[in-house]
Amino acid sequence: MERFDIAIIGTGPAGISAALTAHARNKRFVLLGSTELSPKISKAHRIDNYPGLPMITGREFAEQLKAQLAAMEIPVTGKQVSAVYATGDFFTLQAGEEMLEADTVIVATGVMQGKLLPGEEAFLGRGVSYCATCDARLYRGKTVAVIGSSADAAKEAEFLAEIVENVLYFPISGELPSESEKLRIFHEKPVEIIGEKTVSTLKTDQGEHEISCVFVLRDAVMPDKLVPGVETDGAHICVDLSMRTNIPGLFACGDIAGKPYQYVKSAGQGNVAALSAVSYLQNKK
Amino acid sequence: MERFDIAIIGTGPAGISAALTAHARNKRFVLLGSTELSPKISKAHRIDNYPGLPMITGREFAEQLKAQLAAMEIPVTGKQVSAVYATGDFFTLQAGEEMLEADTVIVATGVMQGKLLPGEEAFLGRGVSYCATCDARLYRGKTVAVIGSSADAAKEAEFLAEIVENVLYFPISGELPSESEKLRIFHEKPVEIIGEKTVSTLKTDQGEHEISCVFVLRDAVMPDKLVPGVETDGAHICVDLSMRTNIPGLFACGDIAGKPYQYVKSAGQGNVAALSAVSYLQNKK
Repeated sequence: MERFDIAIIGTGPAGISAALTAHARNKRFVLLGSTELSPKISKAHRIDNYPGLPMITGREFAEQLKAQLAAMEIPVTGKQVSAVYATGDFFTLQAGEEMLEADTVIVATGVMQGKLLPGEEAFLGRGVSYCATCDARLYRGKTVAVIGSSADAAKEAEFLAEIVENVLYFPISGELPSESEKLRIFHEKPVEIIGEKTVSTLKTDQGEHEISCVFVLRDAVMPDKLVPGVETDGAHICVDLSMRTNIPGLFACGDIAGKPYQYVKSAGQGNVAALSAVSYLQNKK
Repeated sequence: MERFDIAIIGTGPAGISAALTAHARNKRFVLLGSTELSPKISKAHRIDNYPGLPMITGREFAEQLKAQLAAMEIPVTGKQVSAVYATGDFFTLQAGEEMLEADTVIVATGVMQGKLLPGEEAFLGRGVSYCATCDARLYRGKTVAVIGSSADAAKEAEFLAEIVENVLYFPISGELPSESEKLRIFHEKPVEIIGEKTVSTLKTDQGEHEISCVFVLRDAVMPDKLVPGVETDGAHICVDLSMRTNIPGLFACGDIAGKPYQYVKSAGQGNVAALSAVSYLQNKK
């Protein structure tokens, strides 16, 4: 199994900044997240307070960052990390169907906007999933729902349709998937996940759908779901000024590390997190 | 007297970032520091981990920042702040011969490199000065020494030579002043400041000079000299994640707020400090 010095989760300004500094420090690292980078960047109409980039649009900023990663030959590994386990001396990350190992982890996933659906937390692992790649095969021959908020949700739904019997797609944001016999789009608002031992029904503002699983695909998840045992304050991971969390070797930066939600603050914290990881690795030797 | 919402001290990445955000939030602010911006920026050979600006040189980065300030019509007030007094509800700043008032202050002066000279602290205010503009006239008809480390030290020494009898200039870094009958340059290393009630002698590695005052001109000073009462840790001001200090309404960011000394970390903290100041102003109303 591949073992990295640093695993960086998230491709917004915090994760990219961490990657640039890890690269400058010649560490063996992996950058995990959407290859489209954070959709929140591209959506920004105009960024007027990022030092060095006057009056840039979000789209231009995202292009600059992509070009910078390319120039440094830093690949983005387009895998979604569904869980990070602190296993004593190092970390194990579940990324799609793969497992990765790393001595340190930097969480820069962004913060989960909005609330969990009623039933979402209660049924997690029993008919609620955050990872299509991980869990698709459990629902072969079944009907599943996808609540699509993430940049990759449409693609993941199309992948699911290759495996399961039927996909009902409920778009929240982002692009729509291609409809097919096995994948239908419902412009309804999910309001509750219902079941007994496992999930049976997705209730929307317009009716109910019988399904075996609800894939809730957001760009960010609740941090204590991603990293069991990490100290949180609501949707944020608690950090100190060096971006350390309560788990040695685990760092957090950017929106998930608290307000304000600002590009340059995230970029600055990503840099600090990477240098703290470097320092942690040095002390570990 | 002019009263500002926010006084920002320092024109490195932290101070400029704070100014851009204060401007975006429509605050009445003043940006105080060298109009050449931080000399530490221009000196950087190449910056390879600033997200959005691939492989930029320090000089190019400084030019970008200047252009951005100009585009936003944010003036740099080229005054050196020698003291910040927390006077209960607001702050009074001594900037050269002027006094300014502000409801909040953001300290982004950079960190003092190196150590104080023996005697420097003991004689501060009794023949040791950090501000030529403030104290020149006290030494009319006298001989003074200038230890020049700051970007503006050469200019300040030339100004001093117009007022006092003789200036002995000891260059540490930066440009040299123009020599004249009243201003002579000594390539000697100052090692101690000596006196009884007040300063009488500057000792160097090559001899002793009889003088009435030693002007120690650095870009950054010790923070507790700049802001009496602020909580410090060595040369750093203690801050929390929101860049708050122990003094309500006073914020610090960039190198003076602790390591690592990195451009993007400073820029990020400047943004956070400005937003914390905005929030403090809102709560004060």
